[in-house]
Amino acid sequence: MNTVNLKQLAKELNLSVSTVSRALRDSWEISTPTKQRVFDLAKKMNFQPNPYASSLRKHRSRTIAVVIPEVANNFFALAIKGIETVAREKGYHVLIYLTNEEAAEEVAVASNLQSGRVDGVILSLSGETQDTRHLLELQQRNIPLVFFDRVCEGITAPKVTTNDYESGFIATEHLIKAGCSRIAHLTISMGLSISHKRKNGYTDGLRRYDQPFDQDLMIHCSSDEKENYRMIRELFLSEKRPDGVFASVEKLAVLVYHVCRELGLEIPRDVKVISFSNLVTASLLNPSMTTIAQPAYEMGKEAATILFRRLEKKYIVVPDDRVMLPARLEVRDSTAAPAQKPSPAIHRSETCPQPVL
Amino acid sequence: MNTVNLKQLAKELNLSVSTVSRALRDSWEISTPTKQRVFDLAKKMNFQPNPYASSLRKHRSRTIAVVIPEVANNFFALAIKGIETVAREKGYHVLIYLTNEEAAEEVAVASNLQSGRVDGVILSLSGETQDTRHLLELQQRNIPLVFFDRVCEGITAPKVTTNDYESGFIATEHLIKAGCSRIAHLTISMGLSISHKRKNGYTDGLRRYDQPFDQDLMIHCSSDEKENYRMIRELFLSEKRPDGVFASVEKLAVLVYHVCRELGLEIPRDVKVISFSNLVTASLLNPSMTTIAQPAYEMGKEAATILFRRLEKKYIVVPDDRVMLPARLEVRDSTAAPAQKPSPAIHRSETCPQPVL
Repeated sequence: MNTVNLKQLAKELNLSVSTVSRALRDSWEISTPTKQRVFDLAKKMNFQPNPYASSLRKHRSRTIAVVIPEVANNFFALAIKGIETVAREKGYHVLIYLTNEEAAEEVAVASNLQSGRVDGVILSLSGETQDTRHLLELQQRNIPLVFFDRVCEGITAPKVTTNDYESGFIATEHLIKAGCSRIAHLTISMGLSISHKRKNGYTDGLRRYDQPFDQDLMIHCSSDEKENYRMIRELFLSEKRPDGVFASVEKLAVLVYHVCRELGLEIPRDVKVISFSNLVTASLLNPSMTTIAQPAYEMGKEAATILFRRLEKKYIVVPDDRVMLPARLEVRDSTAAPAQKPSPAIHRSETCPQPVL
Repeated sequence: MNTVNLKQLAKELNLSVSTVSRALRDSWEISTPTKQRVFDLAKKMNFQPNPYASSLRKHRSRTIAVVIPEVANNFFALAIKGIETVAREKGYHVLIYLTNEEAAEEVAVASNLQSGRVDGVILSLSGETQDTRHLLELQQRNIPLVFFDRVCEGITAPKVTTNDYESGFIATEHLIKAGCSRIAHLTISMGLSISHKRKNGYTDGLRRYDQPFDQDLMIHCSSDEKENYRMIRELFLSEKRPDGVFASVEKLAVLVYHVCRELGLEIPRDVKVISFSNLVTASLLNPSMTTIAQPAYEMGKEAATILFRRLEKKYIVVPDDRVMLPARLEVRDSTAAPAQKPSPAIHRSETCPQPVL
């Protein structure tokens, strides 16, 4: 019969019941040597924790959630790999929740996560999200939150991004230097931090080279692929047909390729294309696509590393850390100048530097 | 004898029965100090919840799990969309678990799911899985299971697949008719149902056209991309350099494109390429890639529809349903005959018919 209880253990060790209890729960508040003393005696005395009491003292789930807008996207697929790499090292499971770019879905997911089924959350905002109370509530329930890529400036939480503004500037500058004078910018929801920054980089890039900003060359796309195709097609059939396109996400650049093929426009002769993209086939496309490649895997790893630092130190309110990892400009044929069309096998790669404004 | 019940606890604490009950379930609706008061008294009075009553009150999680080997894969991304479409209609959440092609991960996920955090599971096996006891255990815990794509023949559960054998045959026949006489087959784990069937289609295709099967032209790839690249490169540098390649998954076909570029081999002049693939950029590649496109979205929808039929009827042991959705052969430039190279814009598309053997 097991008659050893916490009280006896505590008395034997000359510690408080609370300390023994916390030591047995492996709390960070108790030093490792003390924990060792408690564990050793508990084992020696064949202490059996009361399972009911123990379930009350709920264990951590050893699971983290990754909340993303979509999965058919190379950026998020790579970021998930980065997150999983770190989580695996820590012995944690990763659950993936998709919001499909919908605010209502994001709210439902956040509410679901409040139950404590995960220890922490890594999130990239949906394109629709404006009200962010659901995320504040997560924090109020002591569930640490880390943003990546699409961050919420209004919430105090760590944020891992790429240098979206600089990259937008450099993409625009690259097109201007390749000879473009009517550069369109294809963007997704302007409610997103990334859209905003990339667009600012674009407009400042135009300004830097004395090119006028034309609202008609800003195309606001949605998650409706057919509608996006229609809008891009219309742009190319309009009087203001662009000679350069800067796409903020790769799926829009892929649509540009399709539209150009349909309309018999040749890239890069008739229009040059650059896009934020982690497309694995970018270099194999016809023509190969110039991209701004985000360090997606590294961003995932960084977000997870920050989250685990919080989890291990049991921080609840965390500092507003910001980590910005630079994207890389990968120059390929889709922005080649007409005179010197480089061979598909050759490409120049460079880290996007801070632009001189 | 335990005579303390919820009512007595509630009275003692001057709280409602419902509040005490929710506190004991660790509901987020109850404040931490109140929970602590309830826990403390429950412990002191040695309150034991009635497990039967508790299980009766047990809510369904209204969540299903999708367990897949990888996420950076267009087939799975599309299948998830199909699953989500159905789940959303039913008011269910979808959780995505990745096994990274590892059996140990799949076992860990299954064990995690046994806790009842989901109502049902849709699964595509990892490349390593051989022992499937972890899946039988899920069923024993009354958690319905539906397989898709990579199915386990040994388990009685619904299975949604494409016509892998026929598609393998047709891919091989297509290469032979395009003039190939040394056709390599790039495959992933032979433990998988899909690998087995696609390979059988390949060998029967060769036999049908009196071409010898050559073990050296079977390349067994893994999840190690660098090693896969090395093996494919070696194949093209060997005496038995193939003039046709049938890849069982798209990432291997993408590697073939890269290897050919590195070695200065031209597709389709030097080697023709066909692959199982849902690559969104297949038609934009240089050259555009002939594919066997699985109806991934429809397969996801079908798997989810079957699962919800089980959930709604509360079936536990489910019949061994099999749904086979046909793949489509999308003929493009990567398998064009040297004489008549079709324009990139034109492609023929047809549903893979049952081959005449």
